[in-house]
Amino acid sequence: MSLLVVGSVAFDAIETPFGKTDKIVGGAATYISLCASYFTKDVQLVGVVGDDFPAETIESFKQHGIDTEGLQIKQGEKSFFWSGRYHNDMNSRDTLVTELNVLADFDPILPESYRYPEFVMLGNLAPKVQQTVLERLGHRPRLVVMDTMNFWMEIALDDLKQTLMMVDVLTINDEEARLLSGEYSLVKAARKVLTMGPKFLIIKKGEHGALLFHENEVFFAPALPLEDVFDPTGAGDTFAGGFIGYLAKTKDISFENMKRAIIHGSAMASFCVEKFGTERLIGLTQGDIHDRVEQFRKLSQFDFQLA
Amino acid sequence: MSLLVVGSVAFDAIETPFGKTDKIVGGAATYISLCASYFTKDVQLVGVVGDDFPAETIESFKQHGIDTEGLQIKQGEKSFFWSGRYHNDMNSRDTLVTELNVLADFDPILPESYRYPEFVMLGNLAPKVQQTVLERLGHRPRLVVMDTMNFWMEIALDDLKQTLMMVDVLTINDEEARLLSGEYSLVKAARKVLTMGPKFLIIKKGEHGALLFHENEVFFAPALPLEDVFDPTGAGDTFAGGFIGYLAKTKDISFENMKRAIIHGSAMASFCVEKFGTERLIGLTQGDIHDRVEQFRKLSQFDFQLA
Repeated sequence: MSLLVVGSVAFDAIETPFGKTDKIVGGAATYISLCASYFTKDVQLVGVVGDDFPAETIESFKQHGIDTEGLQIKQGEKSFFWSGRYHNDMNSRDTLVTELNVLADFDPILPESYRYPEFVMLGNLAPKVQQTVLERLGHRPRLVVMDTMNFWMEIALDDLKQTLMMVDVLTINDEEARLLSGEYSLVKAARKVLTMGPKFLIIKKGEHGALLFHENEVFFAPALPLEDVFDPTGAGDTFAGGFIGYLAKTKDISFENMKRAIIHGSAMASFCVEKFGTERLIGLTQGDIHDRVEQFRKLSQFDFQLA
Repeated sequence: MSLLVVGSVAFDAIETPFGKTDKIVGGAATYISLCASYFTKDVQLVGVVGDDFPAETIESFKQHGIDTEGLQIKQGEKSFFWSGRYHNDMNSRDTLVTELNVLADFDPILPESYRYPEFVMLGNLAPKVQQTVLERLGHRPRLVVMDTMNFWMEIALDDLKQTLMMVDVLTINDEEARLLSGEYSLVKAARKVLTMGPKFLIIKKGEHGALLFHENEVFFAPALPLEDVFDPTGAGDTFAGGFIGYLAKTKDISFENMKRAIIHGSAMASFCVEKFGTERLIGLTQGDIHDRVEQFRKLSQFDFQLA
């Protein structure tokens, strides 16, 4: 029983007020898998790259315990490429370049050993592709988590709605929650989204933390106040990787344990933004993670006593 | 030993996407005192109004146990009046009218019985006036909390810096923290502000909660996700009133107890925004407050367990 991760494996070029990168390795499934690998060594990766993708990166995935049998390498083709520039507040960005390349006609083929995962994390991709993955599974996983974005709400809403009916947890940001529901209040938005299929909704608010909604319950995890946010790229995917990784490790999908999973996701995301790309997600120790989670505990926990 | 509250007592006229009011009672000291009165019956109010201010409102202050001996009533003059219109997101507003009236030359006279308070809450006023209050006290209070705003940073920065040297806790919002410190990162901003006098800094982020900084420690209290924010006017003052009221009640100014005080302030603020003006702050029960604080506990507390 394992964690199946599906999503883009790609190149990014990033500009922030702190500097700019050449093409570096990025992609939702890259961040998710690397992050989840700190919690479970049973990660199976499905994605597609071109023959321009560095062999040493795939080797580094393997060293993190990630199974890359499902990572297709298309000879003579190029990997997905995204380039963006962050504004000074780091909360908004402009996309400069999007080259779909191998992602344009991505057929998510599952090796036989991937067909019975306990947990599935669908990184942001066309909803049809996410749906295809679920249809190719040999059983219904214990928990399916799906990430998506405003782009698909605008151009593939019907597909998205179909896919939503097949998942347990949806992760979107606040603007996407408003767009999908037509409600400004996040409480009202959550209530509506929870009628669309998912039993749990995570609304990511970036530097303002994340909300977990389930039935009539709500939990809030803060973001760690940081001296500098160096590069927010991949923070949402890293958050998702920590969330699903923690659940896969603890094998407990209760609401109470999801709270802890969200705290772990937030802790991992707080590492991610400290350096460009995936740099900070390489070579973390369990002690680093433990200390960071402890910072979250101190940040948000109080000794409860009514007046 | 008591809680001294100084600030505006005024009229507001408010427009929000939900409706608009005629002139209704507002003012920082109004919100602070009313809110604090749920925690301690030893509130002494210093402020100034014109003869247009309703006697029944002053009577209602008294019924809340607020000592109004220090509320000056200027015959033949008019009360401070502010009018504003909130934008659709409720996070920003335009000021339509500001009539200083009696506040233009406010001399904060302290009745003799007010000169030895244990706690002082300086609501937003000209820093010089806040300073005069402290100078007129017969002793150094156990804790002085000060609220201020961007306006004074722009037109009276030297006065403000002098006053900051005399207070223990400063409450400002995120934009004001950036303006006062010249730092974008709130962590860096807090570090700088904590060298300016206050030993504790509370940064209010509205619907995104509040941060408490002290030495190298930081605590975060979320805002309660609400179905509708009806009118944000007075939320910051109500927050301050709950914070100082809880401290005055518990007589414990440790960092640990300030965490609980901030949760109580946040709970009180979540009531305030549910109706126009002070409407929701009238007639709350201890049960209402208990239940709301319990909602905050459920929202942010998790059963801690490391992976």
